[in-house]
Amino acid sequence: MRDRLHLLTASEASALIRGRQISVVSLVDASLQRIDALEPGVNAWVTVDREGALETARRLATESEAGRFRGPLHGVPVGLKDLYDVAGMTTTAGAPPFAHERPTEDAESVARLRRAGAVIVGKTTTTPFAYRDPCETRNPWNLGHTPGGSSSGSAAAVAARMVPLALGSQTLGSTLRPAAYCGVVGLKPTYGRISLRGVVPLAWSLDHAGIFCRSVADAALALQVLAGHDPADPHSAQEPVADYLEAVSRAERPPRFGLVRQFFLERAGPEVGAHVEAVAQRLARAGAGLEEVKLPPSFAGVHEAGMRVMQVEAAAFHAVRFAAHAVRYPPQIRGAIEDGLEVRGVDYVAAQRGRGQFRAETAPLLARFDALLMPVTETAAPRGFSSTGDPVFCAPWTFAGVPAISLPSGLTRDGLPLAVQLVSGIFDEARLLAAARWCEAVLGFSGMPSESLVTQGGGREGSR
Amino acid sequence: MRDRLHLLTASEASALIRGRQISVVSLVDASLQRIDALEPGVNAWVTVDREGALETARRLATESEAGRFRGPLHGVPVGLKDLYDVAGMTTTAGAPPFAHERPTEDAESVARLRRAGAVIVGKTTTTPFAYRDPCETRNPWNLGHTPGGSSSGSAAAVAARMVPLALGSQTLGSTLRPAAYCGVVGLKPTYGRISLRGVVPLAWSLDHAGIFCRSVADAALALQVLAGHDPADPHSAQEPVADYLEAVSRAERPPRFGLVRQFFLERAGPEVGAHVEAVAQRLARAGAGLEEVKLPPSFAGVHEAGMRVMQVEAAAFHAVRFAAHAVRYPPQIRGAIEDGLEVRGVDYVAAQRGRGQFRAETAPLLARFDALLMPVTETAAPRGFSSTGDPVFCAPWTFAGVPAISLPSGLTRDGLPLAVQLVSGIFDEARLLAAARWCEAVLGFSGMPSESLVTQGGGREGSR
Repeated sequence: MRDRLHLLTASEASALIRGRQISVVSLVDASLQRIDALEPGVNAWVTVDREGALETARRLATESEAGRFRGPLHGVPVGLKDLYDVAGMTTTAGAPPFAHERPTEDAESVARLRRAGAVIVGKTTTTPFAYRDPCETRNPWNLGHTPGGSSSGSAAAVAARMVPLALGSQTLGSTLRPAAYCGVVGLKPTYGRISLRGVVPLAWSLDHAGIFCRSVADAALALQVLAGHDPADPHSAQEPVADYLEAVSRAERPPRFGLVRQFFLERAGPEVGAHVEAVAQRLARAGAGLEEVKLPPSFAGVHEAGMRVMQVEAAAFHAVRFAAHAVRYPPQIRGAIEDGLEVRGVDYVAAQRGRGQFRAETAPLLARFDALLMPVTETAAPRGFSSTGDPVFCAPWTFAGVPAISLPSGLTRDGLPLAVQLVSGIFDEARLLAAARWCEAVLGFSGMPSESLVTQGGGREGSR
Repeated sequence: MRDRLHLLTASEASALIRGRQISVVSLVDASLQRIDALEPGVNAWVTVDREGALETARRLATESEAGRFRGPLHGVPVGLKDLYDVAGMTTTAGAPPFAHERPTEDAESVARLRRAGAVIVGKTTTTPFAYRDPCETRNPWNLGHTPGGSSSGSAAAVAARMVPLALGSQTLGSTLRPAAYCGVVGLKPTYGRISLRGVVPLAWSLDHAGIFCRSVADAALALQVLAGHDPADPHSAQEPVADYLEAVSRAERPPRFGLVRQFFLERAGPEVGAHVEAVAQRLARAGAGLEEVKLPPSFAGVHEAGMRVMQVEAAAFHAVRFAAHAVRYPPQIRGAIEDGLEVRGVDYVAAQRGRGQFRAETAPLLARFDALLMPVTETAAPRGFSSTGDPVFCAPWTFAGVPAISLPSGLTRDGLPLAVQLVSGIFDEARLLAAARWCEAVLGFSGMPSESLVTQGGGREGSR
């Protein structure tokens, strides 16, 4: 078992620790060894807090040996996108030269992870300020391909089995896209479901926390720990928290899916398109309800509206720093801020109302199904590092603030991960997770990156 | 009793109808007669639906004679600010030449009033688009003075005993200010507590419904009917509705007040200032807790932030109509829209965050008291009709979205109403109403406009 500890999911590891079949120290040690072995090739980490993680592991081990467990993540190693504040660790937001901060308090979500017993291993890479300019991380499935972004490091670290659980964020498609490209589960819950206090914003009204893991059960477990009202985050929702673990443990009823061919399958590349159609048929054969759905009229304008909101809010957040350091900003985020500075208030307000219209119009559609089914991305992870890929299939659901999950579902002919996206109604995470768990059981995807690829290290194959 | 029916409060009338001591028809008839007698002097109504009101009254009378009651407002005559849609009645928004609409559906709040048994008497005047350009309504206490605005007609109609209950709205100070000037109770509940679906907006993120009546018990009764989630209004709150009637029926414990001298009493005119100080001392002598409080630092910027938000949202709502009809807009609303069109998106976002900061900083202060105590306006109702008065003492609490009430508390030497403002924490309407009910009992204000004044009709005394 000892040399396979890095393969455990968070739920499996937690159960074994609670059963005293494995020790917290050996689990954290396995995580650190895995990072040592694969990090030269993958480059998923900004900071690895080796000493801190081992010290916490020893303390938690003493507690668990005495039969005391902090919570459902007792001893589980976790990575955090380098937007999340951890007391005493630098937050760089992917732009270390001019944006680093040394917080004295944990982000609310980090505090919740710690209370649940998680071991913070370190900070994972993010694209600069969580926008589209790529960072140096590579896809563990093929080091010549992007892992996607902006939560590049969290997706890659979970895919490379360095940690079973990592947090990211999603403002357009920054959790589901890299999860799809890296063959891991990526969950973005409803807007406001997880506090973002202590997380560097990209755009306040669009930012969501994201969860990376390797099973739907783990996504439910992490959400159970992280969800809940935070009075100190003005965007935090008061909606009561459901029992997500219960929902996934009883996911036996075949769900009812709305298949979104319009825009999504029309625009997807041939390999992704054929794959999602095949998955849909496979789910239907296994008993799922399947009906093609039409998107509401407001879908036509929601992308432009959401982008405008994002640009203006990014420009508002960066105003002071951008005035001092504009030339140091990489081109994509610089362009977004420059565009945002030009937008009139009335157009921002109109864009927010366009989002609201889409949210309102999709609510009855989402209520008719357990989840909508569609691709996460147009293609598998693109070759090279000039782009983190296109978030266009994820962004509408981020703009609507509804929960969405990326579920690994197959491999391309070239051995890169393929995925399906499931989307449910606002605060319907329990329904979404149950549907995803059912799919996971039917699809039985169990691929993982080849050891030779992730350990090869060395120079990049891709062109820039 | 018959010639005094117009003096009944909504609660009193409702109880007498339920006890079959008065008939719905006679109550509605008394309301219509009172309007006939006083409307020439006061000018509170845009539309009086005599036929419709009497027809509804007859139907409700048949039901109540058979022992069937629709709800707690069964048979109670109600006025609606002419921003509220009533199916089949014109909505003018105070700008009849170019803004009238003929809605086919009731506003959600109107539907709730009807379900509770209310009789819609008609539509009351509003300043154009609920902003500061005065309308033609006069203060029933002295026809040479403004009733305040923008809910001018609802305040005047309730003060003149034409109806016991009317709805208005508040974006800056459009409910509490006219309530104070007209010597009636004015309640603005928490942002999102009452649906605004079917109500012409001024500024979406600032607009609140307002309740005009003549007792705190009536305010509680109306709020009980109107409060609650409306899934079709994107700004409607999901917060559970409290038992407001229970709260006011047990308002025996002396409340704890925070007296706000800073800004409010510093800036109030001498007569209002002395009055509010005297009220505070009287409440303290009756057993209330009383402590002077300091406003949080963000108070300094909240007025400018809120005004900017208002201007931008007004400009966004009016964009199309303003492009076609700018010259027909009266000067105050025209100026606000023109200013709003100039504001950058980033500055709007910063202003919204300034409001959020003030909301966050006042929450702990509000939590320490049953209510903050301060004046509603700097002076009693100003003479003349060139202005509806200054909303500067109401606007901060509208910007914060917290519940506030204006309670009549005395008269000036010239016989104009004076009032105090109570403000509580977000969704703490039960606490606010209980505190207001306690004050009402201690202060025992029972003034009403002199009959000779309200029936004099004829030309205005005031200068323009």
